[in-house]
Amino acid sequence: MIDSAFSHLPALEPGSVWLVGAGPGDPGLLTLLAAKGLAEADVIVHDALVNEECLKLARSGAELEYAGKRGGKPSAKQRDISLRLIELAREGRRVLRLKGGDPFVFGRGGEEALALVAAGIAFRIVPGISAGIGGLAYAGIPVTHREVNSAVAFITGHDASGLVPDSVDWNALSRGAPVLVIYMALKHIEPIVARLLAA
Amino acid sequence: MIDSAFSHLPALEPGSVWLVGAGPGDPGLLTLLAAKGLAEADVIVHDALVNEECLKLARSGAELEYAGKRGGKPSAKQRDISLRLIELAREGRRVLRLKGGDPFVFGRGGEEALALVAAGIAFRIVPGISAGIGGLAYAGIPVTHREVNSAVAFITGHDASGLVPDSVDWNALSRGAPVLVIYMALKHIEPIVARLLAA
Repeated sequence: MIDSAFSHLPALEPGSVWLVGAGPGDPGLLTLLAAKGLAEADVIVHDALVNEECLKLARSGAELEYAGKRGGKPSAKQRDISLRLIELAREGRRVLRLKGGDPFVFGRGGEEALALVAAGIAFRIVPGISAGIGGLAYAGIPVTHREVNSAVAFITGHDASGLVPDSVDWNALSRGAPVLVIYMALKHIEPIVARLLAA
Repeated sequence: MIDSAFSHLPALEPGSVWLVGAGPGDPGLLTLLAAKGLAEADVIVHDALVNEECLKLARSGAELEYAGKRGGKPSAKQRDISLRLIELAREGRRVLRLKGGDPFVFGRGGEEALALVAAGIAFRIVPGISAGIGGLAYAGIPVTHREVNSAVAFITGHDASGLVPDSVDWNALSRGAPVLVIYMALKHIEPIVARLLAA
């Protein structure tokens, strides 16, 4: 019966790419579109941060390509990933690009989307549950709570250069947002904490 | 085949409540857990902001209760909604509380969760795609983009009193976060814009 949930959804067409957020890990937090795309894709190009349980929704025969990036380990370059998506689509394959969390929340989905636009490849963005919201929820922590905070800020713990972002005004953020959620912060946690305490 | 996506997910048990985010509107952005809960619930208590297409996933015979709150219209009080969820669960029903977006992003899910804890009712939080992320994505706008912004702030346009939140330091936020996403801002858009321009 629950199959009918998928019947009105668009199909992942040959020669096109879906940029899909897998959410924070629990396969139950995949969207219906993500699950449908996983079941239809010929090739799934996935990150290190994607839970293997999510990849089990791929149809048998689908190819899984690892394009993981993880601090300190050898990793595919962003440009190479974008070129690979274009190549696969031009071969007429149904391509699903699966990222942890949401593609547009510190996920570099915008860069892949721009590359696909430039190459004239049809694509669809499928948002996912961002780990900074859904992960906290699973820990029992609402990112906002009435009477507690009317704002929350999401910050990346490292920028394009791999360092603590210089463009972030930690003084202003520490005053403006009562709750700060910092993504990918562990590598630089000490300087980040120092800046926030100084602020 | 896609049905297998649901086979390992938990069930919505009689006498318990799931607090579920419906996402920004597209039924394809419902999570697998949300779709499963909708198919299993005896009663669905839903907001005004929930797309009717999402409610069509309810099983036949499920009761739909409207608990909408929308600016300027008569609406159920938050406390009444929490008490109703408790009442339905105590009757042994499988209760799904469906909210637009994410229950924990300006969705008051925390208040309902606290009421359920106090009443000893078993519940589960099912995050949804927040409209400030997924809605923008559907408009082609990433909330973060490498080299553009390393931070983004989410703010509510009205607080518990229904006014522009006094607790928000608009000066600091306008300096700290290069991108501001303001929820439920239309009612107070003029004073909000004035404060941001002054900052």
